[in-house]
Amino acid sequence: MNVETATETVDPAQGSCPAPLTETERVLLGHGSGGQLSASLIRDVIVPALGDATKLAGTDPRGEVHGSGGATETSPLEDAAVLGLGVVDVVVSTDSFVVSPLFFSGGDIGKLAVHGTINDVAMMGGDPLGLSLAFIIEEGFPLEDLRRITASVGEAAREAGVPVVTGDSKVVDRGSADGLFITTTGIGRRLPAARLSAALARPGDAVLLSGPIAQHGVTILSAREGLGFDGDVASDTRPLHRLAAAMLDAAGGSVHVMRDPTRGGLASALNEIAQASEVGVVIDEPAVPVPTPVAAACEMLGLDPLHVANEGCLVAFVDPGDADAVLAAMRSDPAGRQAVRIGEVVADHPGRVTARTLIGAERIVDMLIGEQLPRIC
Amino acid sequence: MNVETATETVDPAQGSCPAPLTETERVLLGHGSGGQLSASLIRDVIVPALGDATKLAGTDPRGEVHGSGGATETSPLEDAAVLGLGVVDVVVSTDSFVVSPLFFSGGDIGKLAVHGTINDVAMMGGDPLGLSLAFIIEEGFPLEDLRRITASVGEAAREAGVPVVTGDSKVVDRGSADGLFITTTGIGRRLPAARLSAALARPGDAVLLSGPIAQHGVTILSAREGLGFDGDVASDTRPLHRLAAAMLDAAGGSVHVMRDPTRGGLASALNEIAQASEVGVVIDEPAVPVPTPVAAACEMLGLDPLHVANEGCLVAFVDPGDADAVLAAMRSDPAGRQAVRIGEVVADHPGRVTARTLIGAERIVDMLIGEQLPRIC
Repeated sequence: MNVETATETVDPAQGSCPAPLTETERVLLGHGSGGQLSASLIRDVIVPALGDATKLAGTDPRGEVHGSGGATETSPLEDAAVLGLGVVDVVVSTDSFVVSPLFFSGGDIGKLAVHGTINDVAMMGGDPLGLSLAFIIEEGFPLEDLRRITASVGEAAREAGVPVVTGDSKVVDRGSADGLFITTTGIGRRLPAARLSAALARPGDAVLLSGPIAQHGVTILSAREGLGFDGDVASDTRPLHRLAAAMLDAAGGSVHVMRDPTRGGLASALNEIAQASEVGVVIDEPAVPVPTPVAAACEMLGLDPLHVANEGCLVAFVDPGDADAVLAAMRSDPAGRQAVRIGEVVADHPGRVTARTLIGAERIVDMLIGEQLPRIC
Repeated sequence: MNVETATETVDPAQGSCPAPLTETERVLLGHGSGGQLSASLIRDVIVPALGDATKLAGTDPRGEVHGSGGATETSPLEDAAVLGLGVVDVVVSTDSFVVSPLFFSGGDIGKLAVHGTINDVAMMGGDPLGLSLAFIIEEGFPLEDLRRITASVGEAAREAGVPVVTGDSKVVDRGSADGLFITTTGIGRRLPAARLSAALARPGDAVLLSGPIAQHGVTILSAREGLGFDGDVASDTRPLHRLAAAMLDAAGGSVHVMRDPTRGGLASALNEIAQASEVGVVIDEPAVPVPTPVAAACEMLGLDPLHVANEGCLVAFVDPGDADAVLAAMRSDPAGRQAVRIGEVVADHPGRVTARTLIGAERIVDMLIGEQLPRIC
């Protein structure tokens, strides 16, 4: 399959699917996928309804607009925002966690909530300083599970060195929620070297990946559906802020984009970056590490590992001159031991991601449209 | 009824009820009440499980510990935390909103989420600079309602001058949530004059209230149960940050405590302050403004207006020498037009709140134990 042929069937850059949201009357599970439907929910419903309440009018997502007095310089589609306080830039990110089941191989909802939010702050170049923690609890939820999950939040926060500074808990009547949902918000101070945005990738940039993909999604699927892979696979949930800081320390200004590919997988993250930066991305598919049991599970289930969620790896777009230095810095951090270069940015086919396969063909890597697996995080 | 007699039946300061949480095996609706059960959930389950992950060991909630490098100086029971960034102190607060119904007289869940979080930041002396917005949406939720609520978020944020800087949305399968839950987190810069904490009330302080109470709770109850009061009552949901700033501007160092009495009503807020500050509080019951239709509804339903939730008023504890100046500043702000002095702090009966009634008797005002009305906010 070559690019031209594939383009005839589906062209994600032109947004030919999914159908515009104005014709859909109800929220679908796919609107939570992290793929194209999620993006359309944000673009077609949430951002227009907020209007100028996001105070984004007039800011240039590619520029070096240095906020002051609460001005933001980030686009509504980033996972975190930078809030300029005049003397210091604060990075803010929020995420709700609705993962099912609550406990799984390698982690639980509490650990996921801490790591996920720390990582979103880190991907914008923030040094995470504190977290807020909000529980929505279903009446009848076992206190033992709540204690266990809260202890896991505490342990993850302690290991990461990021305290839980404030919180909230609400209880809803039985049947009005499914056990427990957690929303965490992270606050960080922007590292001086960091000027990161999904819109800053440039032709020539090397694409670096911190480690193996698709572990979290396959683990959740196996736990939920009783597929029995649990013994062989585990979620990769881990904090990435130290890895990100090491990369910025090695060559701050040369790191243009950092992103942790969670919902929607590596494919969605790369597509978002290609679209925001109006560049093409080409990856070498065989260079992308997929652990053997994960690859086997994906093959059995008909999943493309590039679409499967991760919770502990990052992808970075780096000036080619500093790519080796950044890669070395990544490998010196426990979270980046298996870091690899997986591709590069091209001026061709802006907004589109392609993969060179093992047999030398080139295929389009598109974003998930709807829901592959609900409640993955 | 005098204080001594009442003490024999129930002594909230000694925590004789509710039963310790270790003997309860499941979360009860009352754990979300904002009353004693809520406090015990936080104290007995959440704070111990977090351990030192809140990094509160060694900080003195009464002191002027000026945080640096991410240190917090607030107790886990406050509604917001102060995060010292060295050059600037950031105030952070988070709240999940699970109100039912989503639309009610005077507002909706979107407006409530914006105001509630702005108010928690303001009560700690923060000038709110930005909000994060996280939606948990049930599959099948009408897009029209989502647009309407998001527009309401935008309108409330615009009116308050506090932008929505980042967000998240998750969709859960039908039956796993009840329509829509919103979690907002507010970030503010601490105003220079502000050194506020529930633990800083002193004997002699005047207790000031910004306006009428019990409107929000009665409105929600009426809407939910079809009681037909809706035409006469409306939620008081409104932002209080400008009012709070005007008060601090009038006499910053003399304002010791500010609190917006939401879940659990004015009674719970006063009890929390009395306990945190180890002082007694005496209020003049007839001085507390309750709108006539709200009072009538409370009487019919057997509710004490002091226990009913508010979303647009604040109570402040102020040095008596500056109380008149602060009261004048309050009355000059639209949100404080009807501000009144309702009582004072005493050294007697620390940890306890009493009310002088119309006939001159004194009764104990205790915290709600369990749930008066679930999903009020």
